Amino acid sequence: MSFDEVFAGYAAEVNTGLEKYLPKKKDDILASALRYSVFAGGKRIRPVICLAFCEMLAGSHEKALTFACALEMTHTHWLIYDDLPCMDNDSLRRGRPTNHIVFGESTAVLAASGLFSEALRIIVENGKEYGLNEYQLLAGIKTLIGASGVNGVTRGQLYDLENKPVLTEKELFCIHELKTASLLKAAAILGCIAAEADKKVLGDAESYAENLGLAFQIKDDILDVVGSADELGKTVGKDSEANKTTFVTIYGLQKAQDLVNEYTRKAVSCVGGYKNSEFLSELAVHLASRTK
Amino acid sequence: MSFDEVFAGYAAEVNTGLEKYLPKKKDDILASALRYSVFAGGKRIRPVICLAFCEMLAGSHEKALTFACALEMTHTHWLIYDDLPCMDNDSLRRGRPTNHIVFGESTAVLAASGLFSEALRIIVENGKEYGLNEYQLLAGIKTLIGASGVNGVTRGQLYDLENKPVLTEKELFCIHELKTASLLKAAAILGCIAAEADKKVLGDAESYAENLGLAFQIKDDILDVVGSADELGKTVGKDSEANKTTFVTIYGLQKAQDLVNEYTRKAVSCVGGYKNSEFLSELAVHLASRTK
Repeated sequence: MSFDEVFAGYAAEVNTGLEKYLPKKKDDILASALRYSVFAGGKRIRPVICLAFCEMLAGSHEKALTFACALEMTHTHWLIYDDLPCMDNDSLRRGRPTNHIVFGESTAVLAASGLFSEALRIIVENGKEYGLNEYQLLAGIKTLIGASGVNGVTRGQLYDLENKPVLTEKELFCIHELKTASLLKAAAILGCIAAEADKKVLGDAESYAENLGLAFQIKDDILDVVGSADELGKTVGKDSEANKTTFVTIYGLQKAQDLVNEYTRKAVSCVGGYKNSEFLSELAVHLASRTK
Repeated sequence: MSFDEVFAGYAAEVNTGLEKYLPKKKDDILASALRYSVFAGGKRIRPVICLAFCEMLAGSHEKALTFACALEMTHTHWLIYDDLPCMDNDSLRRGRPTNHIVFGESTAVLAASGLFSEALRIIVENGKEYGLNEYQLLAGIKTLIGASGVNGVTRGQLYDLENKPVLTEKELFCIHELKTASLLKAAAILGCIAAEADKKVLGDAESYAENLGLAFQIKDDILDVVGSADELGKTVGKDSEANKTTFVTIYGLQKAQDLVNEYTRKAVSCVGGYKNSEFLSELAVHLASRTK
Protein backbone atom coordinates (compact mmCIF):
# COMPACT_ATOMS: atom_id res chain seq x y z
CA MET A 1 0.00 0.00 0.00
CA SER A 2 1.16 3.52 -0.73
CA PHE A 3 1.72 6.09 2.01
CA ASP A 4 -1.47 7.87 1.01
CA GLU A 5 -3.48 4.66 1.22
CA VAL A 6 -2.15 3.79 4.67
CA PHE A 7 -2.81 7.32 5.89
CA ALA A 8 -6.32 7.28 4.45
CA GLY A 9 -6.98 3.91 6.10
CA TYR A 10 -5.96 5.17 9.54
CA ALA A 11 -7.92 8.41 9.08
CA ALA A 12 -11.02 6.48 8.03
CA GLU A 13 -10.86 4.37 11.19
CA VAL A 14 -10.50 7.49 13.30
CA ASN A 15 -13.51 9.03 11.57
CA THR A 16 -15.55 5.89 12.22
CA GLY A 17 -14.51 5.99 15.86
CA LEU A 18 -15.36 9.67 16.22
CA GLU A 19 -18.71 9.08 14.55
CA LYS A 20 -19.41 6.27 16.99
CA TYR A 21 -18.26 7.95 20.19
CA LEU A 22 -19.34 11.58 19.83
CA PRO A 23 -22.78 12.55 21.18
CA LYS A 24 -25.45 11.99 18.55
CA LYS A 25 -26.89 14.97 16.66
CA LYS A 26 -30.69 14.67 16.45
CA ASP A 27 -31.92 18.15 17.36
CA ASP A 28 -29.15 18.63 19.85
CA ILE A 29 -27.27 21.93 19.48
CA LEU A 30 -24.38 20.84 21.67
CA ALA A 31 -23.81 17.62 19.73
CA SER A 32 -24.11 19.58 16.47
CA ALA A 33 -21.56 22.14 17.61
CA LEU A 34 -19.11 19.42 18.67
CA ARG A 35 -19.54 17.52 15.44
CA TYR A 36 -19.35 20.63 13.27
CA SER A 37 -15.74 21.25 14.29
CA VAL A 38 -14.66 17.62 14.58
CA PHE A 39 -15.90 16.85 11.07
CA ALA A 40 -14.58 19.98 9.40
CA GLY A 41 -11.99 18.32 7.23
CA GLY A 42 -9.11 18.05 9.69
CA LYS A 43 -6.09 16.08 8.50
CA ARG A 44 -6.17 13.70 11.53
CA ILE A 45 -2.40 13.93 11.89
CA ARG A 46 -2.35 13.35 15.67
CA PRO A 47 -4.56 10.27 15.71
CA VAL A 48 -2.73 8.85 12.69
CA ILE A 49 0.62 9.24 14.48
CA CYS A 50 -0.89 7.50 17.50
CA LEU A 51 -2.18 4.54 15.48
CA ALA A 52 1.02 4.31 13.45
CA PHE A 53 3.24 4.12 16.54
CA CYS A 54 1.04 1.45 18.04
CA GLU A 55 1.12 -0.56 14.82
CA MET A 56 4.88 -0.17 14.35
CA LEU A 57 5.48 -1.49 17.88
CA ALA A 58 2.76 -4.06 18.33
CA GLY A 59 1.91 -5.14 14.81
CA SER A 60 -1.66 -3.88 15.16
CA HIS A 61 -3.13 -0.46 15.78
CA GLU A 62 -6.62 -1.29 17.12
CA LYS A 63 -5.67 -0.96 20.77
CA ALA A 64 -4.88 2.72 20.27
CA LEU A 65 -8.19 3.72 18.70
CA THR A 66 -9.78 5.39 21.74
CA PHE A 67 -6.54 7.27 22.38
CA ALA A 68 -6.48 8.36 18.74
CA CYS A 69 -10.05 9.65 18.84
CA ALA A 70 -9.41 11.40 22.16
CA LEU A 71 -6.40 13.16 20.62
CA GLU A 72 -8.41 14.49 17.72
CA MET A 73 -11.16 15.69 20.06
CA THR A 74 -8.61 17.43 22.28
CA HIS A 75 -6.96 19.02 19.25
CA THR A 76 -10.32 20.22 17.93
CA HIS A 77 -11.29 21.67 21.30
CA TRP A 78 -8.18 23.85 21.06
CA LEU A 79 -9.05 24.97 17.54
CA ILE A 80 -12.46 26.14 18.76
CA TYR A 81 -10.90 28.10 21.64
CA ASP A 82 -8.16 29.46 19.39
CA ASP A 83 -10.69 31.00 17.00
CA LEU A 84 -12.76 32.74 19.71
CA PRO A 85 -13.14 36.52 19.60
CA CYS A 86 -11.15 36.84 22.83
CA MET A 87 -8.30 34.77 21.34
CA ASP A 88 -7.38 34.83 17.63
CA ASN A 89 -10.81 36.12 16.57
CA ASP A 90 -10.88 34.07 13.40
CA SER A 91 -14.00 33.65 11.31
CA LEU A 92 -12.63 31.12 8.84
CA ARG A 93 -11.03 27.70 9.45
CA ARG A 94 -10.50 25.02 6.83
CA GLY A 95 -12.61 27.05 4.43
CA ARG A 96 -15.67 27.12 6.70
CA PRO A 97 -17.04 29.60 9.23
CA THR A 98 -15.58 28.96 12.67
CA ASN A 99 -17.61 27.39 15.47
CA HIS A 100 -18.57 30.59 17.27
CA ILE A 101 -19.65 32.20 13.99
CA VAL A 102 -22.10 29.36 13.38
CA PHE A 103 -23.25 28.54 16.92
CA GLY A 104 -22.53 31.71 18.88
CA GLU A 105 -19.76 32.34 21.35
CA SER A 106 -21.18 30.75 24.47
CA THR A 107 -22.11 27.53 22.68
CA ALA A 108 -18.64 27.42 21.11
CA VAL A 109 -17.03 27.67 24.57
CA LEU A 110 -19.32 24.91 25.86
CA ALA A 111 -18.64 22.75 22.80
CA ALA A 112 -14.89 23.15 23.25
CA SER A 113 -15.09 22.36 26.93
CA GLY A 114 -17.44 19.45 26.25
CA LEU A 115 -15.10 18.01 23.63
CA PHE A 116 -12.20 17.74 26.05
CA SER A 117 -14.49 16.13 28.54
CA GLU A 118 -15.65 13.65 25.89
CA ALA A 119 -12.05 12.91 24.93
CA LEU A 120 -11.36 11.69 28.45
CA ARG A 121 -14.72 9.97 28.72
CA ILE A 122 -14.13 7.73 25.72
CA ILE A 123 -10.79 6.63 27.14
CA VAL A 124 -12.38 5.71 30.48
CA GLU A 125 -15.54 4.20 29.03
CA ASN A 126 -14.37 2.58 25.80
CA GLY A 127 -10.65 1.90 26.20
CA LYS A 128 -11.28 -1.52 27.73
CA GLU A 129 -13.17 -2.70 24.64
CA TYR A 130 -9.87 -2.46 22.78
CA GLY A 131 -7.96 -4.41 25.38
CA LEU A 132 -6.39 -1.54 27.33
CA ASN A 133 -5.88 -2.34 31.01
CA GLU A 134 -6.46 0.05 33.92
CA TYR A 135 -2.81 1.03 34.08
CA GLN A 136 -2.84 1.96 30.38
CA LEU A 137 -6.07 3.93 30.73
CA LEU A 138 -4.68 5.98 33.61
CA ALA A 139 -1.35 6.50 31.82
CA GLY A 140 -3.26 7.63 28.74
CA ILE A 141 -5.37 10.10 30.67
CA LYS A 142 -2.30 11.45 32.43
CA THR A 143 -0.50 11.88 29.12
CA LEU A 144 -3.39 13.70 27.49
CA ILE A 145 -3.95 15.99 30.47
CA GLY A 146 -0.25 16.73 30.69
CA ALA A 147 -0.11 17.69 27.02
CA SER A 148 -3.26 19.80 27.00
CA GLY A 149 -3.26 21.23 30.53
CA VAL A 150 -1.60 24.11 32.34
CA ASN A 151 1.91 23.01 31.41
CA GLY A 152 1.00 22.10 27.85
CA VAL A 153 -1.17 23.67 25.16
CA THR A 154 -2.98 25.85 27.74
CA ARG A 155 0.27 27.59 28.63
CA GLY A 156 1.36 27.79 24.99
CA GLN A 157 -1.91 29.48 24.15
CA LEU A 158 -1.44 31.94 27.00
CA TYR A 159 2.10 32.85 25.91
CA ASP A 160 0.98 33.15 22.30
CA LEU A 161 -1.79 35.56 23.31
CA GLU A 162 0.52 37.77 25.34
CA ASN A 163 1.17 39.38 21.97
CA LYS A 164 4.61 40.63 22.74
CA PRO A 165 5.66 42.92 19.90
CA VAL A 166 8.92 41.02 19.46
CA LEU A 167 9.68 37.49 20.60
CA THR A 168 13.15 36.10 21.05
CA GLU A 169 14.07 32.90 19.25
CA LYS A 170 13.83 31.08 22.57
CA GLU A 171 10.37 32.45 23.34
CA LEU A 172 9.10 31.49 19.91
CA PHE A 173 10.39 27.93 20.27
CA CYS A 174 8.88 27.72 23.75
CA ILE A 175 5.42 28.76 22.50
CA HIS A 176 5.41 26.18 19.74
CA GLU A 177 6.88 23.43 21.89
CA LEU A 178 3.86 23.97 24.13
CA LYS A 179 1.21 24.84 21.59
CA THR A 180 2.02 22.47 18.74
CA ALA A 181 4.55 19.88 19.84
CA SER A 182 2.77 18.94 23.12
CA LEU A 183 -0.16 17.17 21.52
CA LEU A 184 1.97 15.62 18.77
CA LYS A 185 4.23 14.19 21.47
CA ALA A 186 1.18 12.93 23.34
CA ALA A 187 0.05 11.25 20.11
CA ALA A 188 3.30 9.33 19.78
CA ILE A 189 3.39 8.46 23.49
CA LEU A 190 -0.23 7.27 23.54
CA GLY A 191 0.53 4.94 20.63
CA CYS A 192 3.45 3.57 22.67
CA ILE A 193 1.32 3.18 25.81
CA ALA A 194 -1.26 1.21 23.83
CA ALA A 195 1.58 -1.02 22.55
CA GLU A 196 3.05 -1.44 26.06
CA ALA A 197 6.37 -0.04 24.90
CA ASP A 198 9.31 0.47 27.26
CA LYS A 199 10.97 3.74 28.29
CA LYS A 200 13.63 3.75 25.58
CA VAL A 201 10.93 3.49 22.92
CA LEU A 202 8.88 6.23 24.62
CA GLY A 203 11.92 8.49 24.46
CA ASP A 204 12.42 7.90 20.73
CA ALA A 205 8.72 8.43 20.06
CA GLU A 206 8.75 11.69 22.00
CA SER A 207 11.81 12.97 20.11
CA TYR A 208 10.25 12.00 16.78
CA ALA A 209 7.11 13.97 17.57
CA GLU A 210 8.97 16.94 18.99
CA ASN A 211 11.07 17.32 15.86
CA LEU A 212 8.11 16.70 13.59
CA GLY A 213 6.14 19.30 15.58
CA LEU A 214 8.78 21.98 15.15
CA ALA A 215 9.10 21.22 11.44
CA PHE A 216 5.32 21.35 11.18
CA GLN A 217 5.04 24.74 12.88
CA ILE A 218 7.89 26.34 10.92
CA LYS A 219 6.27 25.05 7.71
CA ASP A 220 3.01 26.58 8.90
CA ASP A 221 4.69 29.96 9.26
CA ILE A 222 6.18 29.60 5.77
CA LEU A 223 2.80 28.75 4.28
CA ASP A 224 1.25 31.78 5.98
CA VAL A 225 3.59 33.84 3.78
CA VAL A 226 3.72 31.87 0.54
CA GLY A 227 0.47 29.87 0.61
CA SER A 228 -2.90 30.83 -0.81
CA ALA A 229 -6.12 31.13 1.16
CA ASP A 230 -7.80 28.81 -1.32
CA GLU A 231 -5.38 25.99 -0.74
CA LEU A 232 -5.06 26.51 3.01
CA GLY A 233 -8.75 27.12 3.68
CA LYS A 234 -7.90 29.82 6.19
CA THR A 235 -6.97 33.47 6.30
CA VAL A 236 -3.36 33.97 5.16
CA GLY A 237 -0.97 36.79 5.90
CA LYS A 238 -2.55 37.06 9.37
CA ASP A 239 0.78 36.79 11.13
CA SER A 240 2.43 39.64 9.28
CA GLU A 241 -0.72 41.75 9.52
CA ALA A 242 -0.67 41.22 13.28
CA ASN A 243 3.08 41.95 13.26
CA LYS A 244 3.69 38.61 14.89
CA THR A 245 7.13 37.17 15.37
CA THR A 246 7.26 33.93 13.37
CA PHE A 247 10.01 31.57 12.28
CA VAL A 248 10.00 33.44 8.96
CA THR A 249 10.45 36.89 10.50
CA ILE A 250 13.34 35.54 12.59
CA TYR A 251 15.13 33.39 9.99
CA GLY A 252 13.79 34.44 6.60
CA LEU A 253 12.14 32.01 4.18
CA GLN A 254 15.23 30.09 3.08
CA LYS A 255 16.67 29.45 6.52
CA ALA A 256 13.18 28.57 7.78
CA GLN A 257 12.86 25.92 5.06
CA ASP A 258 16.33 24.63 5.96
CA LEU A 259 15.14 24.24 9.55
CA VAL A 260 12.04 22.36 8.39
CA ASN A 261 14.33 19.96 6.55
CA GLU A 262 16.69 19.63 9.51
CA TYR A 263 13.95 18.84 12.04
CA THR A 264 12.38 16.45 9.58
CA ARG A 265 15.68 14.59 9.19
CA LYS A 266 15.97 14.39 12.96
CA ALA A 267 12.42 13.05 13.27
CA VAL A 268 13.12 10.40 10.67
CA SER A 269 16.31 9.34 12.43
CA CYS A 270 14.40 8.80 15.71
CA VAL A 271 12.36 5.99 14.18
CA GLY A 272 14.93 4.82 11.61
CA GLY A 273 16.12 1.98 13.85
CA TYR A 274 12.68 0.38 14.17
CA LYS A 275 11.21 -2.29 11.95
CA ASN A 276 8.27 -1.12 9.88
CA SER A 277 8.99 2.54 10.48
CA GLU A 278 8.52 3.49 6.80
CA PHE A 279 5.13 5.08 7.32
CA LEU A 280 6.25 7.33 10.19
CA SER A 281 9.36 8.36 8.25
CA GLU A 282 7.32 9.17 5.18
CA LEU A 283 4.82 11.07 7.29
CA ALA A 284 7.51 13.43 8.53
CA VAL A 285 8.79 14.01 4.98
CA HIS A 286 5.27 14.42 3.69
CA LEU A 287 4.37 17.11 6.25
CA ALA A 288 7.58 19.01 5.53
CA SER A 289 6.78 19.31 1.86
CA ARG A 290 3.07 20.03 2.14
CA THR A 291 1.52 23.00 0.38
CA LYS A 292 -1.51 23.26 2.65
CA MET B 1 -17.75 19.11 67.93
CA SER B 2 -20.43 21.44 66.62
CA PHE B 3 -21.63 21.33 63.03
CA ASP B 4 -19.74 24.53 62.28
CA GLU B 5 -16.54 23.12 63.68
CA VAL B 6 -16.79 19.92 61.68
CA PHE B 7 -17.57 21.88 58.53
CA ALA B 8 -14.65 24.23 59.14
CA GLY B 9 -12.35 21.28 59.72
CA TYR B 10 -13.27 19.66 56.42
CA ALA B 11 -13.02 22.99 54.57
CA ALA B 12 -9.58 23.65 56.06
CA GLU B 13 -8.33 20.29 54.81
CA VAL B 14 -9.69 21.01 51.36
CA ASN B 15 -7.95 24.37 51.36
CA THR B 16 -4.68 22.76 52.39
CA GLY B 17 -5.10 20.22 49.58
CA LEU B 18 -5.88 22.90 47.01
CA GLU B 19 -2.91 24.96 48.16
CA LYS B 20 -0.69 21.91 47.77
CA TYR B 21 -1.96 20.67 44.42
CA LEU B 22 -2.65 23.82 42.41
CA PRO B 23 0.17 25.19 40.24
CA LYS B 24 2.39 27.54 42.23
CA LYS B 25 2.06 31.29 41.78
CA LYS B 26 5.51 32.90 41.56
CA ASP B 27 5.22 35.28 38.61
CA ASP B 28 2.94 32.90 36.75
CA ILE B 29 -0.21 34.54 35.38
CA LEU B 30 -1.96 31.24 34.73
CA ALA B 31 -1.36 29.95 38.26
CA SER B 32 -2.43 33.33 39.65
CA ALA B 33 -5.64 33.28 37.63
CA LEU B 34 -6.49 29.73 38.75
CA ARG B 35 -5.76 30.51 42.37
CA TYR B 36 -7.61 33.81 42.30
CA SER B 37 -10.91 32.07 41.69
CA VAL B 38 -10.24 28.96 43.74
CA PHE B 39 -9.32 31.03 46.80
CA ALA B 40 -12.13 33.58 46.47
CA GLY B 41 -14.04 32.58 49.58
CA GLY B 42 -16.09 29.70 48.21
CA LYS B 43 -18.08 27.73 50.79
CA ARG B 44 -16.50 24.37 49.78
CA ILE B 45 -19.89 22.65 49.93
CA ARG B 46 -19.10 20.02 47.29
CA PRO B 47 -15.78 18.87 48.72
CA VAL B 48 -17.25 18.89 52.24
CA ILE B 49 -20.12 16.63 51.10
CA CYS B 50 -17.56 14.32 49.49
CA LEU B 51 -15.42 14.07 52.63
CA ALA B 52 -18.48 13.70 54.89
CA PHE B 53 -19.89 10.79 52.87
CA CYS B 54 -16.54 9.04 52.91
CA GLU B 55 -16.22 9.54 56.66
CA MET B 56 -19.78 8.42 57.38
CA LEU B 57 -19.20 5.20 55.44
CA ALA B 58 -15.58 4.36 56.16
CA GLY B 59 -14.89 6.07 59.45
CA SER B 60 -12.25 8.31 57.88
CA HIS B 61 -12.35 10.91 55.18
CA GLU B 62 -8.70 11.11 54.07
CA LYS B 63 -9.12 8.75 51.14
CA ALA B 64 -11.51 11.20 49.49
CA LEU B 65 -9.25 14.27 49.63
CA THR B 66 -8.10 14.31 46.00
CA PHE B 67 -11.70 13.78 44.86
CA ALA B 68 -12.80 16.64 47.13
CA CYS B 69 -10.18 19.03 45.74
CA ALA B 70 -11.01 17.98 42.18
CA LEU B 71 -14.69 18.76 42.83
CA GLU B 72 -13.92 22.27 44.04
CA MET B 73 -11.66 22.89 41.07
CA THR B 74 -14.35 21.67 38.67
CA HIS B 75 -16.97 23.80 40.39
CA THR B 76 -14.71 26.86 40.22
CA HIS B 77 -13.98 26.29 36.54
CA TRP B 78 -17.72 26.55 35.93
CA LEU B 79 -17.98 29.77 37.92
CA ILE B 80 -15.29 31.34 35.75
CA TYR B 81 -17.09 30.29 32.56
CA ASP B 82 -20.45 31.36 33.96
CA ASP B 83 -19.26 34.92 34.57
CA LEU B 84 -17.77 35.40 31.07
CA PRO B 85 -19.11 38.22 28.88
CA CYS B 86 -20.53 35.66 26.44
CA MET B 87 -22.38 33.88 29.26
CA ASP B 88 -23.77 35.70 32.33
CA ASN B 89 -21.46 38.69 31.88
CA ASP B 90 -20.99 39.18 35.60
CA SER B 91 -18.35 41.50 37.02
CA LEU B 92 -18.83 40.61 40.69
CA ARG B 93 -18.64 37.24 42.45
CA ARG B 94 -18.34 36.71 46.20
CA GLY B 95 -17.74 40.44 46.56
CA ARG B 96 -14.72 40.49 44.26
CA PRO B 97 -14.21 41.32 40.59
CA THR B 98 -14.68 38.20 38.46
CA ASN B 99 -11.78 36.38 36.85
CA HIS B 100 -12.06 37.92 33.37
CA ILE B 101 -12.30 41.43 34.87
CA VAL B 102 -8.98 40.91 36.65
CA PHE B 103 -7.06 38.77 34.15
CA GLY B 104 -8.79 39.46 30.83
CA GLU B 105 -11.15 37.24 28.93
CA SER B 106 -8.72 34.94 27.17
CA THR B 107 -6.75 34.20 30.34
CA ALA B 108 -10.02 33.53 32.18
CA VAL B 109 -11.03 30.98 29.55
CA LEU B 110 -7.60 29.34 29.79
CA ALA B 111 -7.71 29.37 33.59
CA ALA B 112 -11.14 27.73 33.58
CA SER B 113 -10.07 25.12 31.08
CA GLY B 114 -6.81 24.58 32.97
CA LEU B 115 -8.65 24.11 36.27
CA PHE B 116 -10.73 21.23 34.95
CA SER B 117 -7.62 19.66 33.55
CA GLU B 118 -5.91 20.05 36.93
CA ALA B 119 -8.91 18.53 38.69
CA LEU B 120 -8.45 15.33 36.71
CA ARG B 121 -4.69 15.47 36.99
CA ILE B 122 -4.67 15.46 40.78
CA ILE B 123 -6.94 12.41 40.81
CA VAL B 124 -4.61 10.51 38.45
CA GLU B 125 -1.37 11.72 40.00
CA ASN B 126 -2.20 11.99 43.70
CA GLY B 127 -5.13 9.68 44.36
CA LYS B 128 -2.83 6.73 45.06
CA GLU B 129 -1.12 8.57 47.92
CA TYR B 130 -4.43 8.38 49.76
CA GLY B 131 -4.87 4.69 49.12
CA LEU B 132 -7.23 4.81 46.13
CA ASN B 133 -6.75 1.88 43.75
CA GLU B 134 -6.85 2.06 39.95
CA TYR B 135 -10.48 1.04 39.81
CA GLN B 136 -11.44 3.86 42.19
CA LEU B 137 -9.37 6.41 40.27
CA LEU B 138 -11.06 5.50 36.98
CA ALA B 139 -14.52 5.44 38.60
CA GLY B 140 -13.79 8.85 40.11
CA ILE B 141 -12.70 10.33 36.79
CA LYS B 142 -15.75 8.87 35.06
CA THR B 143 -18.05 10.32 37.72
CA LEU B 144 -16.54 13.79 37.51
CA ILE B 145 -16.58 13.84 33.71
CA GLY B 146 -20.17 12.58 33.67
CA ALA B 147 -21.26 15.33 36.04
CA SER B 148 -19.40 18.16 34.34
CA GLY B 149 -19.51 17.06 30.70
CA VAL B 150 -21.93 17.22 27.82
CA ASN B 151 -24.72 15.49 29.74
CA GLY B 152 -24.06 17.36 32.97
CA VAL B 153 -23.24 20.96 33.84
CA THR B 154 -22.19 21.72 30.25
CA ARG B 155 -25.68 20.95 29.01
CA GLY B 156 -27.31 22.76 31.95
CA GLN B 157 -25.27 25.84 31.13
CA LEU B 158 -26.35 25.62 27.47
CA TYR B 159 -30.04 25.34 28.36
CA ASP B 160 -29.74 28.16 30.88
CA LEU B 161 -28.20 30.42 28.24
CA GLU B 162 -30.91 29.72 25.70
CA ASN B 163 -32.70 32.52 27.54
CA LYS B 164 -36.17 31.39 26.73
CA PRO B 165 -38.56 34.16 27.80
CA VAL B 166 -40.65 31.70 29.77
CA LEU B 167 -39.60 28.31 31.03
CA THR B 168 -42.00 25.58 32.01
CA GLU B 169 -41.68 24.05 35.48
CA LYS B 170 -40.19 20.96 33.87
CA GLU B 171 -37.60 22.96 31.92
CA LEU B 172 -36.57 24.88 35.03
CA PHE B 173 -36.10 21.67 37.02
CA CYS B 174 -34.14 20.17 34.14
CA ILE B 175 -31.72 23.11 34.01
CA HIS B 176 -31.00 22.97 37.71
CA GLU B 177 -30.75 19.20 37.83
CA LEU B 178 -27.98 19.58 35.27
CA LYS B 179 -26.40 22.82 36.38
CA THR B 180 -26.52 22.53 40.15
CA ALA B 181 -27.44 19.00 41.18
CA SER B 182 -24.96 17.22 38.85
CA LEU B 183 -21.83 18.24 40.72
CA LEU B 184 -23.46 17.86 44.14
CA LYS B 185 -24.43 14.31 43.19
CA ALA B 186 -20.89 13.69 41.97
CA ALA B 187 -19.64 14.93 45.34
CA ALA B 188 -21.73 12.40 47.24
CA ILE B 189 -20.86 9.59 44.83
CA LEU B 190 -17.13 10.34 44.92
CA GLY B 191 -17.24 10.12 48.72
CA CYS B 192 -18.89 6.71 48.36
CA ILE B 193 -16.36 5.53 45.76
CA ALA B 194 -13.51 6.49 48.10
CA ALA B 195 -15.25 4.48 50.85
CA GLU B 196 -15.83 1.51 48.53
CA ALA B 197 -19.57 1.68 49.13
CA ASP B 198 -22.03 -0.66 47.40
CA LYS B 199 -24.78 0.24 44.90
CA LYS B 200 -27.54 0.68 47.47
CA VAL B 201 -25.45 3.25 49.32
CA LEU B 202 -24.57 5.01 46.06
CA GLY B 203 -28.29 5.31 45.33
CA ASP B 204 -29.03 6.87 48.71
CA ALA B 205 -26.09 9.25 48.37
CA GLU B 206 -27.25 10.31 44.93
CA SER B 207 -30.80 10.95 46.15
CA TYR B 208 -29.51 12.94 49.12
CA ALA B 209 -27.47 15.18 46.86
CA GLU B 210 -30.21 15.56 44.27
CA ASN B 211 -32.71 16.75 46.86
CA LEU B 212 -30.17 18.94 48.56
CA GLY B 213 -29.26 20.40 45.15
CA LEU B 214 -32.83 21.34 44.34
CA ALA B 215 -33.36 22.87 47.79
CA PHE B 216 -30.10 24.75 47.33
CA GLN B 217 -31.07 26.21 43.96
CA ILE B 218 -34.59 27.19 45.03
CA LYS B 219 -33.08 28.90 48.07
CA ASP B 220 -30.69 30.67 45.71
CA ASP B 221 -33.61 32.02 43.71
CA ILE B 222 -35.30 33.16 46.94
CA LEU B 223 -32.14 34.94 48.10
CA ASP B 224 -31.86 36.70 44.74
CA VAL B 225 -35.16 38.35 45.64
CA VAL B 226 -34.91 38.86 49.39
CA GLY B 227 -31.13 38.86 49.99
CA SER B 228 -28.80 41.84 50.09
CA ALA B 229 -25.78 42.32 47.82
CA ASP B 230 -23.64 42.93 50.91
CA GLU B 231 -24.46 39.60 52.45
CA LEU B 232 -24.41 37.61 49.21
CA GLY B 233 -21.32 39.22 47.76
CA LYS B 234 -22.87 39.25 44.31
CA THR B 235 -25.27 41.27 42.22
CA VAL B 236 -28.85 40.68 43.43
CA GLY B 237 -32.09 41.12 41.53
CA LYS B 238 -30.29 39.96 38.38
CA ASP B 239 -32.85 37.29 37.64
CA SER B 240 -35.84 39.59 37.70
CA GLU B 241 -33.96 42.28 35.78
CA ALA B 242 -33.21 39.70 33.12
CA ASN B 243 -36.85 38.55 33.26
CA LYS B 244 -35.65 35.05 34.02
CA THR B 245 -38.00 32.29 35.01
CA THR B 246 -37.01 31.19 38.52
CA PHE B 247 -38.56 29.01 41.18
CA VAL B 248 -39.87 32.24 42.73
CA THR B 249 -41.56 33.48 39.54
CA ILE B 250 -43.21 30.08 39.12
CA TYR B 251 -44.22 29.36 42.71
CA GLY B 252 -44.01 32.65 44.59
CA LEU B 253 -41.86 33.12 47.70
CA GLN B 254 -43.93 31.10 50.17
CA LYS B 255 -44.42 28.03 48.02
CA ALA B 256 -40.75 28.24 47.01
CA GLN B 257 -39.71 28.15 50.68
CA ASP B 258 -42.09 25.22 51.25
CA LEU B 259 -40.30 23.38 48.44
CA VAL B 260 -36.91 24.14 49.99
CA ASN B 261 -38.18 22.57 53.20
CA GLU B 262 -39.66 19.58 51.42
CA TYR B 263 -36.50 18.76 49.44
CA THR B 264 -34.43 19.27 52.56
CA ARG B 265 -36.61 16.78 54.48
CA LYS B 266 -36.20 14.31 51.62
CA ALA B 267 -32.43 14.78 51.63
CA VAL B 268 -32.28 14.19 55.37
CA SER B 269 -34.36 11.03 55.08
CA CYS B 270 -31.95 9.58 52.49
CA VAL B 271 -29.14 9.44 55.05
CA GLY B 272 -31.29 9.02 58.18
CA GLY B 273 -30.77 5.26 58.23
CA TYR B 274 -26.97 5.49 58.38
CA LYS B 275 -24.84 5.62 61.50
CA ASN B 276 -23.04 8.93 62.00
CA SER B 277 -25.21 10.75 59.50
CA GLU B 278 -25.77 13.77 61.79
CA PHE B 279 -23.37 16.02 59.92
CA LEU B 280 -24.90 15.38 56.50
CA SER B 281 -28.42 15.86 57.91
CA GLU B 282 -27.44 19.12 59.56
CA LEU B 283 -25.73 20.25 56.38
CA ALA B 284 -28.97 19.96 54.42
CA VAL B 285 -30.89 21.88 57.10
CA HIS B 286 -28.15 24.46 57.35
CA LEU B 287 -28.15 25.18 53.59
CA ALA B 288 -31.93 25.48 53.54
CA SER B 289 -31.91 28.20 56.17
CA ARG B 290 -28.88 30.13 54.93
CA THR B 291 -29.08 33.90 54.37
CA LYS B 292 -26.16 34.05 51.94
